[in-house]
Formats: sequence, structure tokens, C-alpha cells
Amino acid sequence: MAVLETAPAVVRQGRATHFTDRVREIVSWYASDNPGTTATIARLLTHGYLAGTGKLVILPVDQGFEHGPARSFAVNPAGYDPNYHYQLAIEAGCNAYAAPLGFIEAAAARHAGEIPLILKLNNHDVLHDEKDPLSAVTGSVRDALRLGCVAIGFTIYPGSASARLMYEQLRALAEEAKNHGLAVVVWSYPRGSGLSKAGETAIDVVAYAAHIAAQLGAHIVKVKLPSDYVEQEEARKAYEKAKVPIGTLAERVRHVVQSCFNGHRIVIFSGGATKPNDEDIYNEARAIRDGGGFGSIIGRNSFQRARDRATSFLQTVMKIYAGEVA
Amino acid sequence: MAVLETAPAVVRQGRATHFTDRVREIVSWYASDNPGTTATIARLLTHGYLAGTGKLVILPVDQGFEHGPARSFAVNPAGYDPNYHYQLAIEAGCNAYAAPLGFIEAAAARHAGEIPLILKLNNHDVLHDEKDPLSAVTGSVRDALRLGCVAIGFTIYPGSASARLMYEQLRALAEEAKNHGLAVVVWSYPRGSGLSKAGETAIDVVAYAAHIAAQLGAHIVKVKLPSDYVEQEEARKAYEKAKVPIGTLAERVRHVVQSCFNGHRIVIFSGGATKPNDEDIYNEARAIRDGGGFGSIIGRNSFQRARDRATSFLQTVMKIYAGEVA
Amino acid sequence: MAVLETAPAVVRQGRATHFTDRVREIVSWYASDNPGTTATIARLLTHGYLAGTGKLVILPVDQGFEHGPARSFAVNPAGYDPNYHYQLAIEAGCNAYAAPLGFIEAAAARHAGEIPLILKLNNHDVLHDEKDPLSAVTGSVRDALRLGCVAIGFTIYPGSASARLMYEQLRALAEEAKNHGLAVVVWSYPRGSGLSKAGETAIDVVAYAAHIAAQLGAHIVKVKLPSDYVEQEEARKAYEKAKVPIGTLAERVRHVVQSCFNGHRIVIFSGGATKPNDEDIYNEARAIRDGGGFGSIIGRNSFQRARDRATSFLQTVMKIYAGEVA
Amino acid sequence: MAVLETAPAVVRQGRATHFTDRVREIVSWYASDNPGTTATIARLLTHGYLAGTGKLVILPVDQGFEHGPARSFAVNPAGYDPNYHYQLAIEAGCNAYAAPLGFIEAAAARHAGEIPLILKLNNHDVLHDEKDPLSAVTGSVRDALRLGCVAIGFTIYPGSASARLMYEQLRALAEEAKNHGLAVVVWSYPRGSGLSKAGETAIDVVAYAAHIAAQLGAHIVKVKLPSDYVEQEEARKAYEKAKVPIGTLAERVRHVVQSCFNGHRIVIFSGGATKPNDEDIYNEARAIRDGGGFGSIIGRNSFQRARDRATSFLQTVMKIYAGEVA
Amino acid sequence: MAVLETAPAVVRQGRATHFTDRVREIVSWYASDNPGTTATIARLLTHGYLAGTGKLVILPVDQGFEHGPARSFAVNPAGYDPNYHYQLAIEAGCNAYAAPLGFIEAAAARHAGEIPLILKLNNHDVLHDEKDPLSAVTGSVRDALRLGCVAIGFTIYPGSASARLMYEQLRALAEEAKNHGLAVVVWSYPRGSGLSKAGETAIDVVAYAAHIAAQLGAHIVKVKLPSDYVEQEEARKAYEKAKVPIGTLAERVRHVVQSCFNGHRIVIFSGGATKPNDEDIYNEARAIRDGGGFGSIIGRNSFQRARDRATSFLQTVMKIYAGEVA
Repeated sequence: MAVLETAPAVVRQGRATHFTDRVREIVSWYASDNPGTTATIARLLTHGYLAGTGKLVILPVDQGFEHGPARSFAVNPAGYDPNYHYQLAIEAGCNAYAAPLGFIEAAAARHAGEIPLILKLNNHDVLHDEKDPLSAVTGSVRDALRLGCVAIGFTIYPGSASARLMYEQLRALAEEAKNHGLAVVVWSYPRGSGLSKAGETAIDVVAYAAHIAAQLGAHIVKVKLPSDYVEQEEARKAYEKAKVPIGTLAERVRHVVQSCFNGHRIVIFSGGATKPNDEDIYNEARAIRDGGGFGSIIGRNSFQRARDRATSFLQTVMKIYAGEVA
Repeated sequence: MAVLETAPAVVRQGRATHFTDRVREIVSWYASDNPGTTATIARLLTHGYLAGTGKLVILPVDQGFEHGPARSFAVNPAGYDPNYHYQLAIEAGCNAYAAPLGFIEAAAARHAGEIPLILKLNNHDVLHDEKDPLSAVTGSVRDALRLGCVAIGFTIYPGSASARLMYEQLRALAEEAKNHGLAVVVWSYPRGSGLSKAGETAIDVVAYAAHIAAQLGAHIVKVKLPSDYVEQEEARKAYEKAKVPIGTLAERVRHVVQSCFNGHRIVIFSGGATKPNDEDIYNEARAIRDGGGFGSIIGRNSFQRARDRATSFLQTVMKIYAGEVA
Repeated sequence: MAVLETAPAVVRQGRATHFTDRVREIVSWYASDNPGTTATIARLLTHGYLAGTGKLVILPVDQGFEHGPARSFAVNPAGYDPNYHYQLAIEAGCNAYAAPLGFIEAAAARHAGEIPLILKLNNHDVLHDEKDPLSAVTGSVRDALRLGCVAIGFTIYPGSASARLMYEQLRALAEEAKNHGLAVVVWSYPRGSGLSKAGETAIDVVAYAAHIAAQLGAHIVKVKLPSDYVEQEEARKAYEKAKVPIGTLAERVRHVVQSCFNGHRIVIFSGGATKPNDEDIYNEARAIRDGGGFGSIIGRNSFQRARDRATSFLQTVMKIYAGEVA
Repeated sequence: MAVLETAPAVVRQGRATHFTDRVREIVSWYASDNPGTTATIARLLTHGYLAGTGKLVILPVDQGFEHGPARSFAVNPAGYDPNYHYQLAIEAGCNAYAAPLGFIEAAAARHAGEIPLILKLNNHDVLHDEKDPLSAVTGSVRDALRLGCVAIGFTIYPGSASARLMYEQLRALAEEAKNHGLAVVVWSYPRGSGLSKAGETAIDVVAYAAHIAAQLGAHIVKVKLPSDYVEQEEARKAYEKAKVPIGTLAERVRHVVQSCFNGHRIVIFSGGATKPNDEDIYNEARAIRDGGGFGSIIGRNSFQRARDRATSFLQTVMKIYAGEVA
Repeated sequence: MAVLETAPAVVRQGRATHFTDRVREIVSWYASDNPGTTATIARLLTHGYLAGTGKLVILPVDQGFEHGPARSFAVNPAGYDPNYHYQLAIEAGCNAYAAPLGFIEAAAARHAGEIPLILKLNNHDVLHDEKDPLSAVTGSVRDALRLGCVAIGFTIYPGSASARLMYEQLRALAEEAKNHGLAVVVWSYPRGSGLSKAGETAIDVVAYAAHIAAQLGAHIVKVKLPSDYVEQEEARKAYEKAKVPIGTLAERVRHVVQSCFNGHRIVIFSGGATKPNDEDIYNEARAIRDGGGFGSIIGRNSFQRARDRATSFLQTVMKIYAGEVA
């Protein structure tokens, strides 16, 4: 990693910028945005351990809202405290920290400027679960600005009967965010009555959901890692006819990245539920890296373990992305 | 109570402020808010009998709207008069009085400045009851300002099919309130088709509902006292795995408080339906105190008895919080 | 002072309110205002050493802007620090602290809620002095709300060729302030090409300027202490014909108070330039008290001496108003 | 410099943050601002060679507008190119680059995110010069947001007959900027018919002008280095009476810093006209450092020399501030 | 001219685009603008005879408003008809046609889409002439959009006592225009009490006026051809010290172009009053070409002669720019 090797020299001169050619290349994909927004995307790519590499690891903590506090934090009670997550993300060297309004607000003043923040603008709880989920809008672009966030986050559920409403909410919020120099991160999670359970992570569905997010104007698309199952019959024909390689996880990652404007949008992948074996997650990171993915957004696997283990775990993932660990 | 002991001396100098270290500590949790809002939170914590202790007892009177006038006031007809509740709250030394638009408006001019007011901005009646309740928005932030209120109050029903709409109404009103230096008090009452009847006060559900209110940006969260029942199967696994103590009421209070940003949000508990035995309520107050709760919001148990008995009853509760009564 | 004597007893019950009959009487003069504004006026009258007496002593610190920092603070350099003035006002037991945007903003978060704040919304400097002065508008009603102020302050210069503009600025700001539950304090200082130097404190001119402020909707009028000089010829005839007593300072205070709606507006008097002899100021306070004035706004004579001397000085003034010192 | 010495180790872990205790202390002075604005102030203090030291060196290039292009750039024609100044500021390790709309817009897309930008929102030209100058508003807060700037810059001319208008323009722009999480930098340059030529840099006038900027809500105040001349008669008396030390440049810097809220506002000093001898500028930087000033804003002395000499010149100034050069 | 030679071949394939490398280079200077605006600039550069060359010849007809109809059109009465100018511009192959609201509106429907239109948004008449001229705003961005214009035009008079107001009007209109995907063309004509008559075309003044227009955010700057006179004493020193070559018209054009962001803004030159000898105008075009200017805006010399002579005259100018005529 030439970038990181030269970093100390650069910093001896007091300038720790990481504007590598790769960062410039990625930013160039967003040239239709105003400089405020491209500067913001650049900030995400030049912060933390992976600064300058073109890769990102983001810490998201919305599980308290999405699944309930005990399911999220009882296993590591430090996580009940909003400051904990800021500190974990900073200490581990994440590119950004993402959370709903309350968690961001509770510690934004104390940690002002220490790490790029992503305000999740909609959230969903499971006290009233439904077949066709629809998140509530729980924050605003004004909130993102007053709290010093660099991006808004928004979840869509392609496959839900309510997908249209979510797309339209996203459209309006993204337009406002872009006018104010913010970036837009979209969680695109297929769910709802239009899909089978297996279909939620089917390769055709995940690639389709990622493409929809990109078409809606997302700068950064976040999806789950896809399986090799193909949900839609018409899609199956297309995959078979064109012999799209989807046999390995790296191949599937490559296909999802390709589906987002031939790799010209940043696509990152979620860690999913807590996994007992860290090596499984490291292998996923290797597949994301080898398939041309841009990184991971890792929540439960980070904050549901003790802080020192979380830090070393996250840094191993980052080293895989940085090419420092095979 | 060192704080209260020194108070008379302070007042002899004509300055009745109660800016104890505990008040400063609590206010510091809201540092992302503007000084107008933190000053308002400080006012709630420095008014009344419990001024300076970090505890609150609030008198809410929305039962007329929620349950009908006779069910609310026939037992003590003085309660039909809006002035009565102001006077009761002032006389008893409550931190604040909360009510819907009409009740606040009916006596705000007469009692201007005598006690912090909380304007309940939504209300629900039972003339048309429904499985998935949705309150009507019955007041505005402008109303709160013109009437001299220090906070808006808003009810959400997590578990209702209409929860999403209530969250979004709250989001917009809370943003406006905070811009104008007001505080936000959220009544978070699980109800609706997503929950069993027992689930409405289940410990997992109440903790979750309190967490949602905090994530939506509430400064003060109000919930019902939880039972030891656990409603959600996934939550049960989490409680058991982490051995979360929920056997006693104090333990459950502690868990709810922890669920609100590790105790860095003010959480108060409702008195619920009229109880025949005052000692039961005092025991609840002791459990709230011992579990680290911040106080009570006591409506029917206050205004449905004669004024002198209500005053002494409320002051006994306050003395429990102040540590003056075991 | 019955009020203060009973205060400790009240406080033993934990309630330090000072809603005396006199406070209620004063507040009743403003019954056309909304309860938000009357509650705010009540707050000013129930805070600090003079709480409940109907008298006010306010600490204003705008001299840094109006005269320059060294002229204001070099004699007591602690005054360069914005926190100092908050602390002095709190420690001395003033009813309120008044200052321009920068000074309020610099310490509002630290001292949130500790003392009622008045945001001076216009200010004038002497780097470009002019015969017909016109202050710049340097703050907004929104600023007052976000910073937790209870009132806006505004200076008018009756007698200036620019008076009309100032009256119109005040009108618009006062309307907005009243809509948001704030009070309006007007500094009415005759100056400009329409007046002689002696005329600036002439009894007819000061009474006229106070009346104009009241007619413009001020809740609290602040003027300089008037001399026995009469500036306007037509006024002189009226004073002589009606034998208006203006021989003593107390008589002149009484006439100014009468000129503000027969005493139904709060009128306070400024301390003016630093005086070498404290007894002169005490005598002024006695005259204000005896003439039915409502108190003093004392800047330079307070913050231009050491803190302990300032506190004891201010408290002596307060004791004069409270009737505790002859 | 403990901060810079430990920086390489920090960066080896990939995290180049410079959140030193000094940065946290400075940011704490602005606690009444929202976290968006304090994060922005923190960014200025953690970027470039002086990151973490609490000192700033800013490159401003508005001379093209203020004095004309040939007078500004003919001596080093590379300066005609807007990209040049971005590159110079980045290469030298400045904390920020400040310029009018056209210059910022011309290269913001190319250099998005590389250096904090300050958009000068008003400018003045000398094609129609006047005794009482008044700048034109040439940009907006929306421009600052769309171009990715962290702060707005605004010039006021205390002493001008038009000062009032400039103060009011600044007030409105500053309020809007703060609402959107931007910082406010005020150039306070005494000029106009109220002052003599010598008075423009008189110590009393410069300290007064700096104080006015702080009172108007500036986060960062920029003034010229003051002479030992005292312009105003009343001020002279105050300086003499209080024996304010103003004999050396460091003493005068200390007095100006004190005049800005006792040092609780960032005050930086301009380099002024091109000086033939670099050592003179270095000595000024030493005086600013020794007097407790926060740094320099150096335009003509930077961009009017060849790039390599400009870089080494600026870095020598930074080393003086960092304490690396005596 | 390789571009023009290959054009017919390109068009035979049905694609009449002229997106040469030069056009792409010019457009790249405006990368901070949104694609709507850069597309508009590209349209101007790819229309008409000079499409693809990076040069422009624009027909402006605002003399009717500026000087009166008879002075403008009596010599060639066809010019009284708004359609005439559209037709002349189209027939001659101009890049665009510029006029005030009435002239554009009178024929926009008939010629919709035939030629890029520039709506002059301010105009000045001579029925009340003044030393410090100030144009009236006579059109809006909404007018420009509804009439299908690609750009707004705006005149500023640097040197006028009213310059500040014009700059501020331009700022607001330019921001609105850019938000809507329009380009901004600024006529920068030094005039007013700050300048001598000779100074209006002095090289230092013209270069300064062009620079101001660029700093105000103009995409295209239009100035008069400068003389070799230097108006400002301070500027003279700079020109002499740096030995800026201004002896020939081409050198002066080069200096003006350099003054507009080192040639990274489009600068065009006006033809001025009617000249008896066409060769003089051709020589001016040669000087503009040789000095790196981007073209001409030629009004009176075009429409004040018969149509056929106007067309051939304009095409000769274009051929000079295209390099087809020496």
C-alpha cells in the first residue's frame, strides 16, 4: 500500500491528506454533483484507517431502534451509551459512524468533528411488524446540517408494497441533501410480499435492489451479501443465457458492483447478524475485496463484543481491505 | 439532602436557584441542543419541591379528552375546572403541569409564570376506539409559545399500525420545538395490533418503546411501569442469554433507564389507573427511585381525590424521591 | 417586607415562588399580551433578590460595543470575560442580565437557565459617531429564542433624525417577540439634532421619550434619570400651568412613571457613568423608590469595580428597593 | 511539540486526527453553537501543518477584487490562475483558503475536499473609492454550502458611515450560516470618515473593531496588527488610568486578544502589504505567538512570490507558531 | 481548421455535434457548475458558424432601449422589427442573439429553438442620464426560462457610485440562473464618477472590470477593447514593475484574458460605435484572436447596415476567428 507507507512522511510535514489517485477517480464519478457534495464524498474516503485506499468500513448502530435495546446491547451493555459507538468508530479508524437522530444527537456536541457522521433519516421497529414494511422518517436534512453530518442515510425495501412511498421520500430528501452539499447513502434491503424469504438475498434481487438505489441517486449503496439463488424466472433466463458467473461470493459481489453503473457507484456490504466465527467475516471481506466491492458496514459484529476485541476485529477487516492481510 | 438543606440560606440572599451539580450533569447530556432548550430543561429541574434533586413529579390532566369528563372528574368535581389543576400542581410543588390545548388555554393567563407548562400536542378519545390507535394533533408549537409553555408533549403508540405516522408527526414537531428553545416530552405507550394486552407493559416492550422515544429526539421519556413479562421471542433469548435482571420493579426500572442511552435521558413513569392503596404508589416511587428513574407523572391518582389529600399525597411521593422519606 | 420574610418558610416546602399580590398586580397591566409574554414578565419579577417585590435591578453590559473594550473593562479586566457578567448578575441576585449577541452567546450554554437573559437587539459604536445616531440591528428574535432569552432589548433615540427608522424597527421586532412569548425592553435615550445637550436629560424630554417607548409597545421602559431642566417651550408652559412638581429627583421620577400610562408600565432608570461616591447612587435609588420607580439598570457602576465590591454594592441597592435599608 | 511528535505513530494506525486538548478547549468556547458549527471550527483547527496546535495560518486571495488583477498578480503571474492558490495553500499546509465567489467556484470541483474553504461573502473594489467604504455582498450561504465551504467570510469597516449596514448584513448572513453548520470569519478593518489614517491601526481602534466583530457573533476575528497610537481621547484616558501595557507588539496583540472575550474567541492577524524583508514578518509572527494570538492570514506576502519560496516562507511562519522555530 | 473540415462528414452521419477537444476544455473550466449550466455553455460553443472552434460571435440588440429607436434603427429601418435580428443572427451563423425582454418576447415563439438566446436582464436609457449610472432590472430568470433563453445577460458599471447595488443584483440573479441551468453573461463597462472618460477604456480599468465580473460568477465576460492608457496610479506602478506588455491591442487583449482567471473564463469584446471602415473591425478581430480572446459581440456595426452586407460582414469576422481568413 504505497499510500499508507508514505503517510508518516506526509504527516511529518503536518499534512495528513490522503488524496490518492484512487480517491480522485472515485470522486470523478460524481462530477454532476456540486463541489460541496463531492468534497463530502472525498472526506469519507480520506478519513480513518482506510483513508486514501478507496475502501470504507462504516460503523452503523440503528439496531436499538430496529430490533430493540436488549437484543442489541444486553450482550455488551457499554453499547447502551451513545458515546460508546462514537468512541469505538474513532478508535478503530472507521470511515464514518451512522445512527438515528437520538444516538447522533446524544453525543454530537461532545465528539464534534472527530469522525464523519451519517444521519439515518428513516427507521423501522418490530413492535408492529408487517409483511410489507415501511420505515418512519425520523430525521431531516436540517438535522443533518445542525448536527454536523456529512451524509444522510435512508433505507428502502424493494419488494414491499410500500416501496413506491419510500422511493419518493428518498427522492425528496436526496434532492434537498445534495443542494446542501451532503452525500446520500442508501440501505437497499429487498423485503416484502413481492419476494420469498430466500429471494431477499437472491443474487438477481440484490443486484436489482442495488441498481434501483443507484438510479434513485444514491452516492453510496449498501446491500446484503447475495446468495447464489436466483429468485425471478425472467432473470434466471438472462443469467443463464449470458453465463453470468455467480458461483462464488466474489463473483456475486462483482456482479452487484457491475449492476451499480458498471462499478461507478460506491457499493458496500452489510455484515448481517452476529457470526460466531470471525474468520467467516474475514472471508466475506476478502470476497468483497476480490470482487471489487468498496467495503463493509459492520454493526452487530462490532458493537456486540467487548471494545478491545471490537477494535482489533474491525482493524483486521480494514487490513484485509488495505491489502495488508491476505 | 444537602441541596435542600442549604436552600433557605441561599434564599435569604434572595436567590432561589437550585443549580446543583446533579442538575448540571443532567443538562450536560443535552449539549447538542441550543441553550434555549437546555435552559428550559434546567427550568423543569429547578422548579418545585424537587428543585435541584434531579427528580421530577409532573401533574398531567388529559383524561378528560382521553376518557371523557365524567370518568375523569365526577369523583372530584373540582377537577372540571381548569384552574383547579394549575393550583393543585403549584400547591403540591410539582415540577410542571401538562394538559391539552383547552385546559392550558383556559387558565394560562391567570397563572402565567407560576409553574412550567407542558402542552400536550396530540390527544385521543374513546368515542371511536380502534385496535390500532392514532391520536389527533390538537395543538401547535406556536400555541406552546403563545401560552408560555416550556415543552411540548406528544404521545406515540409503538405497536400500532399507525405508529409510523405518529413518529413522523413527532419528528416534525420536535424539530420546530427545539428551534424555538422548547423541550420535548414523549409519552411512549405500546398499544396496537402488534402486541398482546400483557405485551403493552412487558419489560422488553416498555424498554423498546422508551428507546424509540429517545431515538426520536425526546428530552424526557414517559412510560408505564413495566411488568416482568417478556413479549417478544427474540427479546426473551437476549434477556436470558445476558441474564438481564428484571425480577424486581426496581430492576426493571433500571433496565428501562439503561435502554434510554444508558441513563443519559430523563425517564419518568406514569402512575396508571387510580389505586385504592396509596402505599402501593409510594412503593412504586421507591422502586423508581431505587432503579435510577427520574420521577413520576401522576394524574388520576392526584386529581381524583380531594385537594388537601392530593397535596399531601403528592408531597409524600416527592419526599420519597428527595430521600426525605425512606 | 412581608414577602421576603415568608420566603424561607415557602422554601422549606421546596417551592421558592414569589407570586405576591404586587407581582400579580403588575402582570395584570399587560393582560392584552398572550400568557407566554405575561409569564415572561412574571419570571423577571420573581427572580433574584428582589423576587416578589415588584422591583428590578438588571445588569446590562453593552458598553464594550457602545464605548469600546478598554474604556469598559480595563479598570476591572475580569469584565473582558463574558462569563464574568453572568456570574456577577447571578451572585448579586439581579433580576436579569442584558447584553448584545456575542456576549450572550459566549456563555449561554454554560449558564443555561441560571438567570433571565435580555438580548440587546441593536447596538451603536463610537468609531463613527454622528449627530443623529442610529444603532445597527445586531440580533434577532430567533437568536433570543435559541439562546433562551426572556426578552429582547432595543434602543431608540427620540430626537434623532433617524428616530422614525428606529421606531419602525422596534415595532416589527416587538410584534415578532410578542408572538413568541417574549417581553420587550426599550432603552429610550433622547439624542440627536432635535435636542440640546441639556435637553437629553430634561424632565419634559425624558418623560416624553418614556411615553413614546410605552406607546411603541414596550413592556419595560428604561430611561436616564431626568434633571429639572425643561427643554421644550410648549412643554414648559404646560408644566408651569399645571404646576407639575419636578423640583426633587423623586418628583421627577414620579412624573416619568406617571407619563408611562399612569404607572401601568414598568419604568426603570439607568445608573449612567461611573460615579466616585456610592452614596450618590444609593440616593438615586432612594429617589427612584420614593418616586414609584420600578428599579435600576446598573452597568458601569457594577462591572467596573472588583467582584466582591460589585456584589455588595448591588445588594445595597437592592436592599434600598426592598425597603430593608432606609 | 508533543502533538506533532506523536502524529506519525497515530497515522501508522491510519487515523490522522489531531483532537488535542487545546483543540477541545477552543471548541468549548463555542458551546452555544450547534454541533455542526463546532465540528466545522474543529475541522479548521485539525487541518494542515498546524493541526492540533490551536494556531491557524490561512491563505486569503481577494486582492484581485479589492485592488485589481495586475496589482495583485503581475509580479507572480501564476496567481492569475485560481487553481494556483488552492495548490499553494494545500502544499504549504495552511488551515484554510479564503476567496470570493469566482475564485472559489473556478476550482472547487477540482480540489473538492482537499482543504477547508472560506467563501468571502462581500467585496469592495477601488474603481470607485469613497471615504466611507461599503463592500458589495457577492455570495450567499447557499453558495458556501454548494461549493463545500466550511465558513463564510465577511468584511466590516468600523468607522465608516456605512458601518451600520455592514453590521446588519453580517448579522443576517451569520444567523443563516450558523443554522446550516457553517462558521463565521469576520475581517474587521477600521476605515472611514470617523477615523484618521493613523487611527485605522491605532491600538484602541483595532481592539474596539475586534470586539465589535466578536459581539456580532464572529467565531474567528481577523484584524490588522495594531500600532502603539491611541486614536480616541476617551480611550486614551482609560489606557493610561489602567496602565494597559501597549508598548510592544506582543503586548498589543495580547490586548486585542483580551478584547475578544478575554481570549475566548479566535483572533488572527493580517500580514498587510508585501514586505521586503521576510524577517520582519517572522518577527510579527513571533509577537502574535508571544501575545497569545491564534495565527495569521497572509495573502500578498504569500502569493506575490514564486511558489517554492512561498511554501518555505509560509512553513517558516507555521514553525514559529508551532514552537519549532524560536 | 480540422474541426470545420470534418464537420460535414460528421453531419452526414446525422450527428451535428461539434464537441471538439477545445469545447470540452473550455467547458471543463466550469466544472463547479451543475451539468445543466455546463450543457448550456456547450450549446453556445457548438452553435453557428464557429461551432466547435471555441470562439463566439454574438449579436446584441439593446440599443433601442439604451440610445433610443431612431438613433438605433433609422439608418436601417428593418431593425425596428424584432424578427429581423433573429433572422440576421441565424442567417449569419452567430452563436447567440441577445436582447431585452420586449425584443426577445416579440419573436421568441416564431423562432423557437433556432438560435441560442440571451435575455438582457437590466437596461439603461438616456432620457435621464447621470454621472453614476444604474440600470433598471427589466427581466427575470423566469422570463429567461419561459422564453427559452440559454443565458441571462447583465450589465455592471464598475466605477459608478451605484456599482455595489449592481453587483448585488447580479449576485442574486446569477445564483438563481445557475440553479436553473442557465449561463450568466456579464457586460462589464467601467463608468461613473470614480473614473475619467479615458479611464473607461484604460487597460488597467478594463482588466479590473473583467476580473470583477469573473469574481462575481460570470461564465462569459464582455468588455470593451482597451486602450494603452493606464488610469490608476497604483496600477501603473504594478504594470511598470512587472513590465506587463500592453503596447499592442493583441497584448492588451491577452492581458484582459489573463485577468479573467488566467484565461479560464470566456472573455469577448464589443465592437463599440459604428465604424466607417470595416477593415478596422477586422483588424480588431485579428487582435482579439491573436491575443487569445474568445470572440466578439457586435451590435451597431451589424444591424445598422443592410441585411446582406451585415451577413457577409459578420461572416468575415467569423472567418477571421476560425482561421479561414488571415
